[in-house]
Amino acid sequence: MIQNIDQSSLFPIINPKSIAFFGASNRFTSMGTNQLSSLEALGFEGNVYPIHPKEKRVLGLEAYQSVQDLPEIPDLAVMVLPSGIVPPVMEECGRKGIKHAIVVSGGFNEVGGEGVELEKKLIAVAEQYGICFLGPNCLGVVNPHHKFNMTFLPFEGRAGFIGLASQSGSLITQMFGYLDRFGLGFSSGISVGNEANVDIVDCMEYLAVCPHTKVIALYIESIRRGRAFIELARSIVPSKPIVAFYAGGSEAGKQASFSHTGAMAGPDSLYDGVFRQCSIIRADSITELFDFCWVLGSCIRPQDNRVIVQTHSGGPGAAAADACSRNGLELPQFSENTLEKLATLVPHTGSVNNPVDLTFSKNPMDYFADIPDALLEETAANGLLIYILTPGQIIRRTMESMEIPPDQIPKLTEKLFNDQADSLAALTQNHQKPIIGFTFQSHKNMFIQKLIEHGLPVFPSPERAARAMSALVIYNQTLNDH
Amino acid sequence: MIQNIDQSSLFPIINPKSIAFFGASNRFTSMGTNQLSSLEALGFEGNVYPIHPKEKRVLGLEAYQSVQDLPEIPDLAVMVLPSGIVPPVMEECGRKGIKHAIVVSGGFNEVGGEGVELEKKLIAVAEQYGICFLGPNCLGVVNPHHKFNMTFLPFEGRAGFIGLASQSGSLITQMFGYLDRFGLGFSSGISVGNEANVDIVDCMEYLAVCPHTKVIALYIESIRRGRAFIELARSIVPSKPIVAFYAGGSEAGKQASFSHTGAMAGPDSLYDGVFRQCSIIRADSITELFDFCWVLGSCIRPQDNRVIVQTHSGGPGAAAADACSRNGLELPQFSENTLEKLATLVPHTGSVNNPVDLTFSKNPMDYFADIPDALLEETAANGLLIYILTPGQIIRRTMESMEIPPDQIPKLTEKLFNDQADSLAALTQNHQKPIIGFTFQSHKNMFIQKLIEHGLPVFPSPERAARAMSALVIYNQTLNDH
Repeated sequence: MIQNIDQSSLFPIINPKSIAFFGASNRFTSMGTNQLSSLEALGFEGNVYPIHPKEKRVLGLEAYQSVQDLPEIPDLAVMVLPSGIVPPVMEECGRKGIKHAIVVSGGFNEVGGEGVELEKKLIAVAEQYGICFLGPNCLGVVNPHHKFNMTFLPFEGRAGFIGLASQSGSLITQMFGYLDRFGLGFSSGISVGNEANVDIVDCMEYLAVCPHTKVIALYIESIRRGRAFIELARSIVPSKPIVAFYAGGSEAGKQASFSHTGAMAGPDSLYDGVFRQCSIIRADSITELFDFCWVLGSCIRPQDNRVIVQTHSGGPGAAAADACSRNGLELPQFSENTLEKLATLVPHTGSVNNPVDLTFSKNPMDYFADIPDALLEETAANGLLIYILTPGQIIRRTMESMEIPPDQIPKLTEKLFNDQADSLAALTQNHQKPIIGFTFQSHKNMFIQKLIEHGLPVFPSPERAARAMSALVIYNQTLNDH
Repeated sequence: MIQNIDQSSLFPIINPKSIAFFGASNRFTSMGTNQLSSLEALGFEGNVYPIHPKEKRVLGLEAYQSVQDLPEIPDLAVMVLPSGIVPPVMEECGRKGIKHAIVVSGGFNEVGGEGVELEKKLIAVAEQYGICFLGPNCLGVVNPHHKFNMTFLPFEGRAGFIGLASQSGSLITQMFGYLDRFGLGFSSGISVGNEANVDIVDCMEYLAVCPHTKVIALYIESIRRGRAFIELARSIVPSKPIVAFYAGGSEAGKQASFSHTGAMAGPDSLYDGVFRQCSIIRADSITELFDFCWVLGSCIRPQDNRVIVQTHSGGPGAAAADACSRNGLELPQFSENTLEKLATLVPHTGSVNNPVDLTFSKNPMDYFADIPDALLEETAANGLLIYILTPGQIIRRTMESMEIPPDQIPKLTEKLFNDQADSLAALTQNHQKPIIGFTFQSHKNMFIQKLIEHGLPVFPSPERAARAMSALVIYNQTLNDH
């Protein structure tokens, strides 16, 4: 395994300093134009050279008739071209001395027939000139830490810690906004397409040493190099968790994968075995893939599977307890010591069993301070799931009835939320145990945003929170086994 | 079974014309005050009489020292009082002639000990005076069609078609905003609490004949009257679907339920059997409870389990296909007739298998018109799952490059979205087959809002869309079996 990111043959594909771009014009109905425009919109700081047979300028950039005319040898060539002309263009790039490429164009192996021949031709040309390339039939690369968005869609997100290698480009580009809503982002997202040259194993190798990547996510429809995949994953997992979603496990999933990238998927049990062998955590859905990444990249690991559920609402608490049980988590009873502390904090209509149900706590401020403090102190458990509900209107009404001037209420509310998030974040650090929130409120809610900003994941349902906690437990178990 | 809603003993509890309210003051730190304030905020049109020992006015309403002083016999008494004084207050109400009550107060069976005695006393008093009551330990009732929100939280939602009977009050109040984000709402939500008198079976009977209720949702921690439950559910299901979530199935869920409402939960398999016996559709999570209600209340039923997935993004399509397969749905191949039609609509880089993957369609407008039209015409399938992605920025850029004046772009975009949603909604009607959307975009997205307004459910993941489609298939199968 390589030790540094710049040893990876992928480095110039993900961190280029200069790019030759084939396939953009000034018409926004073309995919290439949108792709170049996305690159510019994120403020890429390197040199960009559009190659165009006729236009003098493309999207405001000086255009060149041929790659041979460029004033330097670019790090990277990007092609969004009709499939037939991709091999000759690759050859031109080779003659110029370009050593890295992204082939976005589709119409190769995945369409069968002539496409298969065309892909062989492309591989041969690249081999001849020693070109390392991503694709074809991919959506490109995003590396927000490098202000590099070489995908079709504008980057509506933030830089983050999830390194995704994906056999679906959409699951990179179409996750920009999705992740952003949870305060998350990609360290890098790599769409591998047909994997004619660079494959998912190469991407894992890169992401393993990428300093921005805290957790590796994989979207898989089929693994082409099984042995290399397992060996590499095994060597990565002790220092960086890997989460995978596999789409080809059912008959329909297998068919869909074949149409998509021309790869043959294998039976579900086979992939289950592969993931187990190398301690990759398997996600059951796309949603879960990113849920697991969230907690693995931001939470302290629980020492075992014993957790506490804290709620002030019986139903959400019971649903969380049920989901914990179904996902291998245990809810222990509390020690005398903890019970004594809770006695002063929990009203008699509440419950000091696990889940702890505060109903109405005597002092609402306890909910994010003294109560979780007592629960995290409990030695019988090593993690906390906490139900989040911020009744904004009730806070406002209460402040109004305290005769706080209306114009001061928003600022005071924000301070209140910030203090409570601060308090909870400090507790997870002090006790070195994870806290995972769950809610049915919108993630636009200010308090939830504050919690997320403080590094505390909050999931939109008790079940997702419980599943995420179990992923943390599984990863910790893996590390203990090593 | 009753035939009309006003034959239900619950009618005055859910549709009162006048209310005596115990437990509100002018202090917003008290739960009762918030509850009365919520009632007022939704604009309840009947008479409201706060009863208060000292205050002359409560929240601007004339207050009365005793229920005996009221100028009329109210339909309903609501009590948010310390548990000890609930039985004597109930007795006073009985003497006044009040026949219906909601007891919000906790501190009864669910806390054990003296609470158990207190609940017996409450039941005896109610029996003596012939009072039908909800609770104790409940959060009340919401009936937005009657502008009646007798719960603790402000009603931040809309009137809808989901009739929920719940052993958790939180799962009513805390779902107001959640449902609203999907364009959904309650017809009525009834928190049954400890079910000392009115129980979940009574609520089902009411909801079965409630004209606003298209689908009945149940949150269950335990069923007290098993036989009555099964018999009633069996008689309801042929005309109205019932969806249930059961929280007591695991060991931790059972413990949590016991602490919550003092009821003994049964093993998971028992409840599975009960639901099967009366063709109640079981939801595996709270999220799914409402997902299933959404499609059952708004979609045309598919004639069988054969569906088509339409996408322009391989990964989301493959994930949807995989999820369909795992949930009992089949993805058939297309007839020659359909293939011919698709040949003119799908580019050569796409796939005319199932999932249909448009990659880039030749004309983006086809995506919501000619393509789904051809797919719904296909006799080998009876439902359509469609991936939704609206690249807002690209639409704007394209319009800009067409030299459309910037100030006209928002209006034109809205018209475009509206027309496309219209087109899709017309197709589901014309072909009498359901269309379910899935997306990773925010539900705040204007196009998604338009689809929802047109009665087309859009789910935040392919897996949830597939599960929802399977719920439709299961319900249709039930009807065919009858």
